[in-house]
Amino acid sequence: MKTIQIINGPNLNLIGIREPEIYGTQSFDAYFEELKSVFKDVNLQYFQSNCEGEIIDKIHETGFSADGIVLNAGAYSHTSLAIADAVKSITTPVIEVHISNIFSREQVRHHSFLSAVSKGIIAGFGFDSYRLAIESFF
Amino acid sequence: MKTIQIINGPNLNLIGIREPEIYGTQSFDAYFEELKSVFKDVNLQYFQSNCEGEIIDKIHETGFSADGIVLNAGAYSHTSLAIADAVKSITTPVIEVHISNIFSREQVRHHSFLSAVSKGIIAGFGFDSYRLAIESFF
Amino acid sequence: MKTIQIINGPNLNLIGIREPEIYGTQSFDAYFEELKSVFKDVNLQYFQSNCEGEIIDKIHETGFSADGIVLNAGAYSHTSLAIADAVKSITTPVIEVHISNIFSREQVRHHSFLSAVSKGIIAGFGFDSYRLAIESFF
Amino acid sequence: MKTIQIINGPNLNLIGIREPEIYGTQSFDAYFEELKSVFKDVNLQYFQSNCEGEIIDKIHETGFSADGIVLNAGAYSHTSLAIADAVKSITTPVIEVHISNIFSREQVRHHSFLSAVSKGIIAGFGFDSYRLAIESFF
Amino acid sequence: MKTIQIINGPNLNLIGIREPEIYGTQSFDAYFEELKSVFKDVNLQYFQSNCEGEIIDKIHETGFSADGIVLNAGAYSHTSLAIADAVKSITTPVIEVHISNIFSREQVRHHSFLSAVSKGIIAGFGFDSYRLAIESFF
Amino acid sequence: MKTIQIINGPNLNLIGIREPEIYGTQSFDAYFEELKSVFKDVNLQYFQSNCEGEIIDKIHETGFSADGIVLNAGAYSHTSLAIADAVKSITTPVIEVHISNIFSREQVRHHSFLSAVSKGIIAGFGFDSYRLAIESFF
Amino acid sequence: MKTIQIINGPNLNLIGIREPEIYGTQSFDAYFEELKSVFKDVNLQYFQSNCEGEIIDKIHETGFSADGIVLNAGAYSHTSLAIADAVKSITTPVIEVHISNIFSREQVRHHSFLSAVSKGIIAGFGFDSYRLAIESFF
Amino acid sequence: MKTIQIINGPNLNLIGIREPEIYGTQSFDAYFEELKSVFKDVNLQYFQSNCEGEIIDKIHETGFSADGIVLNAGAYSHTSLAIADAVKSITTPVIEVHISNIFSREQVRHHSFLSAVSKGIIAGFGFDSYRLAIESFF
Amino acid sequence: MKTIQIINGPNLNLIGIREPEIYGTQSFDAYFEELKSVFKDVNLQYFQSNCEGEIIDKIHETGFSADGIVLNAGAYSHTSLAIADAVKSITTPVIEVHISNIFSREQVRHHSFLSAVSKGIIAGFGFDSYRLAIESFF
Amino acid sequence: MKTIQIINGPNLNLIGIREPEIYGTQSFDAYFEELKSVFKDVNLQYFQSNCEGEIIDKIHETGFSADGIVLNAGAYSHTSLAIADAVKSITTPVIEVHISNIFSREQVRHHSFLSAVSKGIIAGFGFDSYRLAIESFF
Amino acid sequence: MKTIQIINGPNLNLIGIREPEIYGTQSFDAYFEELKSVFKDVNLQYFQSNCEGEIIDKIHETGFSADGIVLNAGAYSHTSLAIADAVKSITTPVIEVHISNIFSREQVRHHSFLSAVSKGIIAGFGFDSYRLAIESFF
Amino acid sequence: MKTIQIINGPNLNLIGIREPEIYGTQSFDAYFEELKSVFKDVNLQYFQSNCEGEIIDKIHETGFSADGIVLNAGAYSHTSLAIADAVKSITTPVIEVHISNIFSREQVRHHSFLSAVSKGIIAGFGFDSYRLAIESFF
Repeated sequence: MKTIQIINGPNLNLIGIREPEIYGTQSFDAYFEELKSVFKDVNLQYFQSNCEGEIIDKIHETGFSADGIVLNAGAYSHTSLAIADAVKSITTPVIEVHISNIFSREQVRHHSFLSAVSKGIIAGFGFDSYRLAIESFF
Repeated sequence: MKTIQIINGPNLNLIGIREPEIYGTQSFDAYFEELKSVFKDVNLQYFQSNCEGEIIDKIHETGFSADGIVLNAGAYSHTSLAIADAVKSITTPVIEVHISNIFSREQVRHHSFLSAVSKGIIAGFGFDSYRLAIESFF
Repeated sequence: MKTIQIINGPNLNLIGIREPEIYGTQSFDAYFEELKSVFKDVNLQYFQSNCEGEIIDKIHETGFSADGIVLNAGAYSHTSLAIADAVKSITTPVIEVHISNIFSREQVRHHSFLSAVSKGIIAGFGFDSYRLAIESFF
Repeated sequence: MKTIQIINGPNLNLIGIREPEIYGTQSFDAYFEELKSVFKDVNLQYFQSNCEGEIIDKIHETGFSADGIVLNAGAYSHTSLAIADAVKSITTPVIEVHISNIFSREQVRHHSFLSAVSKGIIAGFGFDSYRLAIESFF
Repeated sequence: MKTIQIINGPNLNLIGIREPEIYGTQSFDAYFEELKSVFKDVNLQYFQSNCEGEIIDKIHETGFSADGIVLNAGAYSHTSLAIADAVKSITTPVIEVHISNIFSREQVRHHSFLSAVSKGIIAGFGFDSYRLAIESFF
Repeated sequence: MKTIQIINGPNLNLIGIREPEIYGTQSFDAYFEELKSVFKDVNLQYFQSNCEGEIIDKIHETGFSADGIVLNAGAYSHTSLAIADAVKSITTPVIEVHISNIFSREQVRHHSFLSAVSKGIIAGFGFDSYRLAIESFF
Repeated sequence: MKTIQIINGPNLNLIGIREPEIYGTQSFDAYFEELKSVFKDVNLQYFQSNCEGEIIDKIHETGFSADGIVLNAGAYSHTSLAIADAVKSITTPVIEVHISNIFSREQVRHHSFLSAVSKGIIAGFGFDSYRLAIESFF
Repeated sequence: MKTIQIINGPNLNLIGIREPEIYGTQSFDAYFEELKSVFKDVNLQYFQSNCEGEIIDKIHETGFSADGIVLNAGAYSHTSLAIADAVKSITTPVIEVHISNIFSREQVRHHSFLSAVSKGIIAGFGFDSYRLAIESFF
Repeated sequence: MKTIQIINGPNLNLIGIREPEIYGTQSFDAYFEELKSVFKDVNLQYFQSNCEGEIIDKIHETGFSADGIVLNAGAYSHTSLAIADAVKSITTPVIEVHISNIFSREQVRHHSFLSAVSKGIIAGFGFDSYRLAIESFF
Repeated sequence: MKTIQIINGPNLNLIGIREPEIYGTQSFDAYFEELKSVFKDVNLQYFQSNCEGEIIDKIHETGFSADGIVLNAGAYSHTSLAIADAVKSITTPVIEVHISNIFSREQVRHHSFLSAVSKGIIAGFGFDSYRLAIESFF
Repeated sequence: MKTIQIINGPNLNLIGIREPEIYGTQSFDAYFEELKSVFKDVNLQYFQSNCEGEIIDKIHETGFSADGIVLNAGAYSHTSLAIADAVKSITTPVIEVHISNIFSREQVRHHSFLSAVSKGIIAGFGFDSYRLAIESFF
Repeated sequence: MKTIQIINGPNLNLIGIREPEIYGTQSFDAYFEELKSVFKDVNLQYFQSNCEGEIIDKIHETGFSADGIVLNAGAYSHTSLAIADAVKSITTPVIEVHISNIFSREQVRHHSFLSAVSKGIIAGFGFDSYRLAIESFF
């Protein structure tokens, strides 16, 4: 049984409340229950933090034992070389996901420090980006 | 039964022969057979051309009737505003896919004209990028 | 009797269908009939292609005999040095036209390779840009 | 009977004297007489100033009553955000014109603050740019 | 009793008429009456010009005697090094104000030559930006 | 009675000690007492953290109930897209303040991610920037 | 007897008062008297304006009859393409002068639109820059 | 006996007619006859197309069997990542040639996508660039 | 006896595990023991955190009492203006160190916000960079 | 009696032969004789070298004893930070001169490392630039 | 009998020792002997220096009498405007050569100051670049 | 006994005289005596030149036999690709040193061509940078 760790970054705790025209009205917690029912045979773990350092800590903690990490670092994707270094430092493969299509938004969101060090990137499918990322491990 | 059109751009006819350290040694034709056996209930269509104009023609031809287009425009992703305009001109949703992780390659491949006008982007999973793109329609 | 060649580039075959909030709902074919009725004493010719190479071929073919070329190269205006070279290579004067005001759209459309090598540029008048371009030859 | 206001910016009072290899040897006053004889049924008005502020004043003064403004702001086209704001502030449609092809001259003349806020742009036809601009209102 | 000079730049004479979705429908003259009733013990002066040179003249004229200048140079904020030099040349402190939030508008409005030479900047509060600027002198 | 939350970012706990030629010698705590005596009828709250994540947490916590947030994110203003996203995610209006005139300091401080998403910006008035920001809510 | 026209731009009327650490404490009027006593056999003329348009007008007025123009356009040197066009439009040779060494000041003052169209440039000698410029005509 | 394939890109069919001050008045066909007489023991092949896709097709077709390719992609050199990918995809060594010295022409011609993936580059010798390229294979 | 505080930033807790081809296989803890045996007469202190805010806190805490700080802020060197501000805010001199030669790695690592505000920089000597930094205090 | 040292940089030994349309046909040696006859009471010295190091040596040698240095560093003006450092290192004032108007030539010649560290700059007067520079010392 | 001067720049004296994976293991002296045996009827001359000034001197010395110069300025190609000026100053045609393909190396080597002023450029053929350059004179 | 070669570049012969606020008042010769007394068991050699070519020559001469090179190339650090190539061409490890903190000075000094090819960099410690560099070899 594979272990997949989902890590969400800043402001993703407000999904469902924050900017619903971009992110929709469902909370991530509610979606996570759906996701567990889709992947019954996967040990799905979920962590969220608004703190860059705690995200790095979690990557370190799970990055040598989990079978995969699905990482939506939110705005830190575009500003954090430190998280990118964390991704490079571990052995678990990481998939970068985004709920929205970051390439149709402001210029600053078109570049992610994480993309070059992730195995792959999936963006633009709403919450479904997470499902596709988990699919990629099978 | 849904119709999904795969469109491959320049040099993708040489996959399996071209730069195997990046793209592997399987031809796309062989992979396409695999894909059809995975999605038995989908009307999967496949088209490849090295000509920008013919890719635009195919997008026009299928872009009002197919249920989805999976588009790997190869190098044209990074230079063709005209294909991006074609994607904007149609009603069928388009998923941009790449076999390799374009963000870990040369600078010129980090920007794609297609990303902003596609529904979503999937890159870095080898041929599996195509499977995930098709999954996204279900 | 003067011969004026109109050359339309990629996606302009979808005018009337494509992005009507920018380009309106009339097809170019319908407009071309109108145009011929306005310029009864002009030998008006019309060509459209989505292929950069075919546009170059047409410029070569007509560029030493026609009295004027009205060129709307669409997205190729912004990416094709080759078409600009073709315009420089011929003796017939070329007028660059655009249906929309390219300067009030995305940044990439603010520069056209064709402008510097055309006799003049007319943009932003809808289909009427073509009429004004033809007027300029009289 | 329509009223069309022509506004000319800095150094255009020297046309006919200034850089004749670019602008020709006819004065604008002489051309304006020609223009009035072409458009006998139009109330054509003409104003020239070398002062940015006076051009803004004139746009304000005529921009709610004239049927059209034909604006050749000369060098201010490339440096004046204030004139562009004036154009945005009024209700009369404005056509940006240039005598020379600004895109085949120095880099600084390739961008005009006015283009994005004008209805259309016409450049490169010599004085004939003014005639075509007036034609566009009919 | 303190003297505070308000100086408004180009197009601000059209406030109330111009782009009401950005600037509202009240004229500055009407607002100025309100402002005088709020600051009854202040000698409030008001000047507006569309001409860069006249704004410089007014800064010179009042910049050694007034207790404060509240300067909204409109579009000249973003293009006029000469007004910035005028601000540096005088002894009266200057507050730069903007009605709209210039940082949420087009790129060209994100930089102001005046900011570095002003005492402070206040932007985004509608007409209330003027009240806050005057408050800063007390 | 309105609730106004002041949030101070990194190194602002050292104000009064740090770089006194820029920030003066009074501590923020001492100033905060002054501020409370000025705004006796306002429920003024104050929070400081050197951690980007804790600032985001505080914005989330107060951003749906406070009547206003006065945010001086210090150096994070110039590097944190995540705090900007937090500001966009809430319903309470945010005023960006700076003690110093950020536009007369180094280049990197001329751009703030927060400006475009705040209601307004006030900079350069020393501690008085906070008073003016609070004034703006009345 | 040669006629040399000196034209001074914005804020140069404040020389002697403005930023004395850069420009000294002597007024230009006082210096001009000195200059006339040095060049007794030259018809020296002097004009100053803070208005870009009036500077252009003066260049037009004297630019076909004077033997030389000594132009210190102040801040307009760095922002005014229109004055540069005026210099190009006339037949009298123009010398660009600056009191301070513009190249050891802020970046924006390192480029002058006037330099490329002037006969020569002299900068950094205080008022003596004017004397050297006049010398160049003999 | 070695096989050398010459591939010419857009507008090179007009050599001898097009811009003779840059390219001379001899047609490439005439030159090709000369070239064959110089290299009697070489199987020289020649192909020209204005279409990017056809050039890619020809590179694919000959790129695994010919002993060398001499490629003058004309304007596509500067815009076509797809042709560069084709060159990388094959096993035959490619020499990039240009008739003119591309480095003494406009900026856009100073960068070629093909240079980095070709074995070598030869530019500026007129038609003689082709002869030197063929020499390099011996 | 001098007190020297070593502060290590993000991912440096994984040294010895992370990217050994760049950082070697010894842990920092093991190296720190070596270091203490070399500098027996120095009060060496060591702190590591993945959190930007905690690094700032530690700089504040020790920055007025320690004799020197040796700071390897890892990836935060390249993105954190806030840590740079902390370094400027204290009185203890700071030496910036890097294990690897940051200038022979990716572009983003060539600029450090810390360099300009540190006393000196030492990079590229592996762990030995720390020894040399401590040497600099004697 | 004042000593003025003239230092000429690379290729200036070919003046009179090299590019006469820019530099004229008189050799510098011939001009130097003229110059000495103009400034009979000045100890004029002249040195030329094509070697950056020798120019630095000469600046060191004369830079503490001469009353003035007139420096035309030719192309090194635009590439040599080392010569600029030499100018900063000495006590003799340096005037930067150029024969041609460097601002009307290629972009690379618009910036000179020497300008910011020289007392003044004189360019565009042909050999007469040297005379004016010497004048500036009197 | 033609005289061809070969000029080699910095570090090319170490060819055969320096970075053999790029430049091979043969010394240039050894290669020069080969070259002379190929071109028995040519007066081949060879000069090498690590000093920019000496290279300029040699270009001046031979640039009016030799029939051709083959110039490999090594790293100076990318930094020396002075050598480019020397090439422009002479009458002998110059061919720029490089042993390696400079376009597939670091960014800084993609631009050469010499290219625009040379007759032609040949790069990427190893020592054979020299042979082809000499061929071009026949 | 190890041999360490110190190589100093342009203007470092004036240390002690030149800009003492940056470099202090001690000459390098005096410091070198101190250094030899500290490293009694090291064969310390010292060379200085203002000529780029002579620095390259010295690197070649000592770069295959010395145990270490301590290189302060002064301004050439920031402009000389040729010296960087020399460093790459040899087998002796090179340490780049700077007396001042180059990162707190002008922008042009923030990039050094030498850093990427040196083993390590030490900057900002005054003359002590040399001592630390020598320490690094033990």
